Amino acid sequence: MAKRKSEFELIHWLRSERVLPCRVRLGIGDDCAAVDLGPGETCLITTDTIVDGVHFRLDEHPADLVGRKAVGVSLSDIAAMAGRALAVVSAVAIPAECPVDLAERVCTGIAEACHEFGVDLVGGDVVGTSGPLTITTTALGGVCPERMLSRSGAKAGDSIMVTGDLGGSILGRHLNFIPRLREAGSLATRFSPHAMIDVSDGVSRDLSHVLSESGGLGAELESAAIPVSAAARQLATHTERPALWHALNDGEDFELLFTAAQPEAERIVAQWGDPTLVTVIGQVTPEPGLWLRDPEGWRSPLEIEGYEHLRP
Amino acid sequence: MAKRKSEFELIHWLRSERVLPCRVRLGIGDDCAAVDLGPGETCLITTDTIVDGVHFRLDEHPADLVGRKAVGVSLSDIAAMAGRALAVVSAVAIPAECPVDLAERVCTGIAEACHEFGVDLVGGDVVGTSGPLTITTTALGGVCPERMLSRSGAKAGDSIMVTGDLGGSILGRHLNFIPRLREAGSLATRFSPHAMIDVSDGVSRDLSHVLSESGGLGAELESAAIPVSAAARQLATHTERPALWHALNDGEDFELLFTAAQPEAERIVAQWGDPTLVTVIGQVTPEPGLWLRDPEGWRSPLEIEGYEHLRP
Repeated sequence: MAKRKSEFELIHWLRSERVLPCRVRLGIGDDCAAVDLGPGETCLITTDTIVDGVHFRLDEHPADLVGRKAVGVSLSDIAAMAGRALAVVSAVAIPAECPVDLAERVCTGIAEACHEFGVDLVGGDVVGTSGPLTITTTALGGVCPERMLSRSGAKAGDSIMVTGDLGGSILGRHLNFIPRLREAGSLATRFSPHAMIDVSDGVSRDLSHVLSESGGLGAELESAAIPVSAAARQLATHTERPALWHALNDGEDFELLFTAAQPEAERIVAQWGDPTLVTVIGQVTPEPGLWLRDPEGWRSPLEIEGYEHLRP
Repeated sequence: MAKRKSEFELIHWLRSERVLPCRVRLGIGDDCAAVDLGPGETCLITTDTIVDGVHFRLDEHPADLVGRKAVGVSLSDIAAMAGRALAVVSAVAIPAECPVDLAERVCTGIAEACHEFGVDLVGGDVVGTSGPLTITTTALGGVCPERMLSRSGAKAGDSIMVTGDLGGSILGRHLNFIPRLREAGSLATRFSPHAMIDVSDGVSRDLSHVLSESGGLGAELESAAIPVSAAARQLATHTERPALWHALNDGEDFELLFTAAQPEAERIVAQWGDPTLVTVIGQVTPEPGLWLRDPEGWRSPLEIEGYEHLRP
């Protein structure tokens, strides 16, 4: 007969056998990871880093808005899964030459944004760095497993929808946007969307993520339906590009992009009732490829030109 | 009669009133924050940033060990709360001039460490930076609320104990340590310790955190009982300081420092059975102040000299 395990050996065995682990419902590659902690309780987690000179400019932007952005980008990912935001931890790497009051204002911005967005700031880390000010914010969310929206649920024939208007975020919105937690909660509880993502890399790129994660589908967007923001139009007066290009390709709108069956999309538009705009901008096609249809009905390929980090 | 709320208005009200939020059991200031997600299910979260040139040297240390350290420091915080590690997300800021294979080896180190420590790597972020390579790792843990160990439970008369041996981590252990998850789990399930912290800033400083969080207590350590590591002794041959100084003040040991009532401490030592050493190093006193008692019985004040980030 095998020797009876001591309590310690048993615990050790339980740990090594991982009888008690969480179940990873959704791993790397969506807006958040989803981890089942207990029956009916799925926890969302997402982490984002923003770096001075890449995602903001401390010599130009108000320090409190920099902190606010760090919180907003992560809460936007929680919204994109239709989660409710629970808690935030924030790690700040501060350059030695950064004035103390500036660093404090960034941290105050983090705390104030958490308060504004109704989430608890529960912890963090502060370290020194020889490089630029860098903030990594991790948000924890909760979601009903049945209501969670991933990138992978889009179906051919779905209407493609967005909240708000698009483009030109560099003129200010990339700092002071409001993560669409309320709108996402309303969508998930009152309607039945199929897939969702937040627009962080530009509609063309983020839509392509949804389409490829949903099994290699395509999409046709209606150019006249795209909600081009005033900022995109203003930006277009300084750039060589049309305002529509900015609406389709600028990143950091932090709006929600989602799909729903066509009748459900019509119901969403009819019954929405939230001050934040929702718009049908096109539809999902069974064959891959991104197309843009102009008001005369001509179709042209839509290039993905959104911002990509670390591009050469 | 007040107008009946629409479903949307109700959801909006529920959110704004925060009837459904998590309960923050433990906020900023311990090794982890503890957030109650549902009945009997407490979630731990901790975030840590390590920066090239501050916490490691990419030109000197193996890249995979750098990734391993990023994971280990956060899991050590989960261990310090007696939690089980569930999931990790890791955000990496990569300098433009960093060779691709080096960045990849860091990330491989992160993934391999997660595998080795039995935790799922569920997400992350990769961004460019003009500064040094910076890794922020956030770990999610689960813990039985009744078994969670914070810094604040120490009592006058408690024995002070540590796992492993101490000091000289700069000679290697700060990179290749094993977070004490197994030992912490064994402690919390088989014994009844009062308070726990991981030794990241040096025993003197970390002990002082426990004492102040426990209501302004003090401690007397026995110099002859301190488990001085071979690395501390080796380091002392190059520095002006005694090996004991390194054991008491060097940071990044990532051992567990905990307190337990004296009879329980004796039971822990007698019944421990784990290959990792546990040692009683002193006792908690009702009056504040840190003292070191030598083998002749003479008491001298113990200065806190552990490493502090951002010190002038």
